[in-house]
Amino acid sequence: MTRNIDLAVVAGDGIGTEVVEQGLLVLEAALAGSDTKIGTTEFDLGARRWHATGETLTDETLESIKGHDAILLGAIGDPTVPSGVLERGLLLKLRFALDHYVNLRPNKLYAGVTSPLANPGEVDFVVVREGTEGPYVGNGGAIRTGTPHEVATEVSLNTAFGVERVVRYAFEKAAQRERKHLTLVHKHNVLVHAGHLWRRTVEAVNAEFPDVTTDYLHVDAATIFLVTKPSRFDVIVTDNLFGDIITDEAAAITGGMGLAGSANINPDGTFPSMFEPIHGSAPDIAGQGKADPSATVLSVSMLLDHLGLAAEAARVERAVAADLAERGSVVRTTAEVGADLAARVRG
Amino acid sequence: MTRNIDLAVVAGDGIGTEVVEQGLLVLEAALAGSDTKIGTTEFDLGARRWHATGETLTDETLESIKGHDAILLGAIGDPTVPSGVLERGLLLKLRFALDHYVNLRPNKLYAGVTSPLANPGEVDFVVVREGTEGPYVGNGGAIRTGTPHEVATEVSLNTAFGVERVVRYAFEKAAQRERKHLTLVHKHNVLVHAGHLWRRTVEAVNAEFPDVTTDYLHVDAATIFLVTKPSRFDVIVTDNLFGDIITDEAAAITGGMGLAGSANINPDGTFPSMFEPIHGSAPDIAGQGKADPSATVLSVSMLLDHLGLAAEAARVERAVAADLAERGSVVRTTAEVGADLAARVRG
Ligand SMILES: CC(C)[C@H](C(=O)O)[C@@H](O)C(=O)O
Ligand SMILES: CC(C)[C@H](C(=O)O)[C@@H](O)C(=O)O
Repeated sequence: MTRNIDLAVVAGDGIGTEVVEQGLLVLEAALAGSDTKIGTTEFDLGARRWHATGETLTDETLESIKGHDAILLGAIGDPTVPSGVLERGLLLKLRFALDHYVNLRPNKLYAGVTSPLANPGEVDFVVVREGTEGPYVGNGGAIRTGTPHEVATEVSLNTAFGVERVVRYAFEKAAQRERKHLTLVHKHNVLVHAGHLWRRTVEAVNAEFPDVTTDYLHVDAATIFLVTKPSRFDVIVTDNLFGDIITDEAAAITGGMGLAGSANINPDGTFPSMFEPIHGSAPDIAGQGKADPSATVLSVSMLLDHLGLAAEAARVERAVAADLAERGSVVRTTAEVGADLAARVRG
Repeated sequence: MTRNIDLAVVAGDGIGTEVVEQGLLVLEAALAGSDTKIGTTEFDLGARRWHATGETLTDETLESIKGHDAILLGAIGDPTVPSGVLERGLLLKLRFALDHYVNLRPNKLYAGVTSPLANPGEVDFVVVREGTEGPYVGNGGAIRTGTPHEVATEVSLNTAFGVERVVRYAFEKAAQRERKHLTLVHKHNVLVHAGHLWRRTVEAVNAEFPDVTTDYLHVDAATIFLVTKPSRFDVIVTDNLFGDIITDEAAAITGGMGLAGSANINPDGTFPSMFEPIHGSAPDIAGQGKADPSATVLSVSMLLDHLGLAAEAARVERAVAADLAERGSVVRTTAEVGADLAARVRG
């Protein structure tokens, strides 16, 4: 029996279109000859659309995206658009409207990849970043803007409901892994209200997962360990902003933004989950075939896994790992890397 | 004519007492035979005091501290005290009550120091962290605590007044340096209200400092560059929380917390400024003579500089630099390092 998957594709800005094209090629290769057929709908969203129409994401488009099984996203953001317009109006709107409360960001130092660290050791951890709360809720404002009396606020909102569900997800992840270790990253000695909610929640949910050991790091200390001993991490659970910060540092120590995939997951399945490289639109190299599509291809692997196609997901990840192990210093274009990965996946 | 300096000493918790003792020895050595005499008043604050009396920092003690010319602080925080009590009630209370709006954190990779980075390059930058606003204001709260309906908030407060004065200080610093470059670190694509205030302020104040070039990095991108190209930084100006995070990462890449000094400055001179290593109380190694006092000694150098004793400040920094260049792998106690540094300063 054939299974049809409707994929919404939001290539977005800058290198987004280039890397998504290769991601789709690899996805096709992974499903070639299988019972699963992918149908794609491309959504023209991002800077071009905003310049042309003033729209970031209309209710109608959002509804249409909701009708799909999953989303593949390239990158959002462009220097010609005022800062925050596309980020808040499109990317974060998707994450919030589709209740992507788990932002899953794996970090592995693959063989053959050079880390900027002298002695990285074995790095293989995953960050479970909360995706729908914290300082990202857009609950801020300003008075007397542009005057010497301006006051600007940003409010971090944290709920027991929101923290508990992502913490439980993180424990589930940790329980499935060999080391079964979960590190909470926060700053509860300063952000005492939010921090204590996170801490109490981790303690409470831990009772359901007696095999999982836990520890706690302040976010500042976490940035140190990411540099001095990244091998200590197994699963990290953290808030939206701290997760944003430490996953970029984590990507840097494992070979850079060209290799870091991610999944914005709605575990309940009420809404489609969204898969995207964690890098941005990189306008400085856009259109030049210089972007590494590997991060997008790793996101495609996470997409396949999410759809229950574990074997295909593993095949795609193995292709990336093999490519990295053998790439040496040869410079290839975005399309060449994509073609090589697709060929490896086809086998 | 003799100049008398009244120094308030808050050694605090854990390794705080050990490193402050050595810092004071070096300070004495630096002023030996000079016209400047230091008188010290020790304030018994921190975990011991809290356990004994329930007090963190009384109004009376605060008033007494205000009567001093400067403060030398060791470290605050202990696992036997609920998280946040000493941090908010003592350390942050001092920073806020004494209007330490500049938290100055230099980062240099000294010769002889091993960085965890394979190719750190020449690292020599200074972070100007805002010290009296942002998410550190303690403006948060919670309702229905401990129930499934708990909501916890943290509010970041940012004012034109507060941002402008620290940004101007950062420009002044940058203008005095060789590269004359200032990087604003924030997250204005998400925290749009606070972020745009910071951005507009940097643009406006730049007009007064036409020699200084500026650029902008999102905090997540800054954590990447700290690992991949720390030599790109000259002066960084940033908010209280982002400054907390990136200065720990910065310390890690330049040899660790044992080498990172800092100054909490009230540039107006209305209140005494406070000098402290950026490391914590490290209860795991406290009382064992294992702590490196160099961070405190570098803070003492900043204290001397703040008091207008530039030659003495330079002599102390040179002593640390020489000690680092020659220390190799010899293990010394806290007191031995302090004695060696004091001897070098005496010359
Ligand atoms: C583009 C930006 C809004 C986004 C974020 O802050 O979440 C990005 O940095 C990320 O990590 O996906
Ligand atoms: C102890 C803590 C409150 C403090 C801070 O967050 O500022 C520390 O991390 C620092 O950087 O001085």
